[in-house]
Amino acid sequence: MNSNSKLNRVLIVGGTHGNEFTGSYLIKKFQQYPELIRRTNFETLTLLANPRAFKEVRRYINRDLNHCFSRLDLQDTTISGYEDLRAKEIDQIFGPNSQNPIDFIFDLHSTTTNMGLTLIVDDYDFFSLQLAADLSYLNPDIKVYTFGYSYPSQNLLPLRSICKSSICVEVGAVAQGILNAEIFLKTEALVYAILDYLEKYNRGEIPSKQNTLTLYKYTEAVYFPRNEHGEIQAMIHPQLEFKDYLPLHPNDPILLTLDGQTITYKGDSIVYPTFINEAAYYEKGIAMCLTQKHQITI
Amino acid sequence: MNSNSKLNRVLIVGGTHGNEFTGSYLIKKFQQYPELIRRTNFETLTLLANPRAFKEVRRYINRDLNHCFSRLDLQDTTISGYEDLRAKEIDQIFGPNSQNPIDFIFDLHSTTTNMGLTLIVDDYDFFSLQLAADLSYLNPDIKVYTFGYSYPSQNLLPLRSICKSSICVEVGAVAQGILNAEIFLKTEALVYAILDYLEKYNRGEIPSKQNTLTLYKYTEAVYFPRNEHGEIQAMIHPQLEFKDYLPLHPNDPILLTLDGQTITYKGDSIVYPTFINEAAYYEKGIAMCLTQKHQITI
Repeated sequence: MNSNSKLNRVLIVGGTHGNEFTGSYLIKKFQQYPELIRRTNFETLTLLANPRAFKEVRRYINRDLNHCFSRLDLQDTTISGYEDLRAKEIDQIFGPNSQNPIDFIFDLHSTTTNMGLTLIVDDYDFFSLQLAADLSYLNPDIKVYTFGYSYPSQNLLPLRSICKSSICVEVGAVAQGILNAEIFLKTEALVYAILDYLEKYNRGEIPSKQNTLTLYKYTEAVYFPRNEHGEIQAMIHPQLEFKDYLPLHPNDPILLTLDGQTITYKGDSIVYPTFINEAAYYEKGIAMCLTQKHQITI
Repeated sequence: MNSNSKLNRVLIVGGTHGNEFTGSYLIKKFQQYPELIRRTNFETLTLLANPRAFKEVRRYINRDLNHCFSRLDLQDTTISGYEDLRAKEIDQIFGPNSQNPIDFIFDLHSTTTNMGLTLIVDDYDFFSLQLAADLSYLNPDIKVYTFGYSYPSQNLLPLRSICKSSICVEVGAVAQGILNAEIFLKTEALVYAILDYLEKYNRGEIPSKQNTLTLYKYTEAVYFPRNEHGEIQAMIHPQLEFKDYLPLHPNDPILLTLDGQTITYKGDSIVYPTFINEAAYYEKGIAMCLTQKHQITI
């Protein structure tokens, strides 16, 4: 988005993963009470992205919907899993070639990890970085995270990639398949804060001053050790559990094997672990993601 | 079990629900290191009860395995879902009509609720009540819970019902589909404590003195309000979240509707809620179970 263009249509997404209830139930609430998300100078739309997975309380039916949005996949007529078809449908209604493309998306996720209120942005998306800087300045509990260019790969683009500017809201810790009222209320407040920011932006009321922002940049994933059957052989070390965003020093414990051996962090500088013990990452064998902490000026 | 009979075969079960990882990974550990559960005067066996659900990280494939053990179902040749067949297989190997029936079962479960270390016993099972009294005396963090006669109904008998004496170990809070090291280690220690008790019992070293026991008896379930589509319309109230086993007074908040209204407890005496916000109970619409707290002498 260039700095002069106004937003016409904003899309709030929930239930991209069917077992992350916070977003799904917020979408249902907003659909029941649309006045809550109505703002004066743009249209707000809502989407329950994966209704079948929501109904079955699963992350996905055939494959992760949040990996189905590369142009290659969207144009591939030979793939027809439930999520593949759903991605095409979503792209036709809201995508760049639709009649009324969306100008800004934010997608509501939750996590079993203790990531609190996290905004995930793309580090080339200047508009979202500014929004994240503004919100995290107003509420220092908000952390800002980026996978940079390294994730997702160009073959596994997320839903929000159908729009040039977008944010993923990631809130935890909350188990899959439940609502936690505190998490729900915090996420709801964050939705309103984002909408209020967008309204101010459309009014030209966002000052063009320089912002500083603490940005956690993904560097690598740490994998669980596995046996020959692919079964994990370790857990998050109790000293690291729920310590997302806190500094991890060389030789600090990170994993505890099932037979009681401590595995330490072998890097040579401080890193900031995130997604520590995310249930959805077990199928990939990922124990946590490491980040570096940057102070950036935008 | 009468007071003179010795235990010959003890079965430790995990993974009755495929997304409760603590028990499954403990079973795998015990299968890898059988010396950990070996005791001098009985044989210890292990069972990963629902391997397919474990692999798919789901509670069950076709229906809850822990509801498949009524004699009627086990003898019904017309039912053939995955869990129905698995139940028959388990009954044939370990059940009362098998070549070497089991004398005592304990089944390792986990919960998204903050129930800490809970032993679920049947209130007519004198042997298990004594075991629970002894363990909770040694470790006051252990709570003892019973569904009494009201649950499960005679049509939905649990796996452990194939044995005359049994305990269900229920540990939380832990999200589905993850391992939490602290929960894992606590459950493992509890397994060893149970085995040590059984070994002492076989040696005749359990004193026949009277024991007192705090027993939480299930009285009723509290349901989420739902709309005409069956979708829940409220969450656990933030003031009640994670407050399992703490006293709930008349007019205390229990639920918060999605549109922000507080629902209070309408009973006329103190109760002790359990299973507050159990993910697996959402499909039944159960928000929590209420219990009464009894001091009993056995």
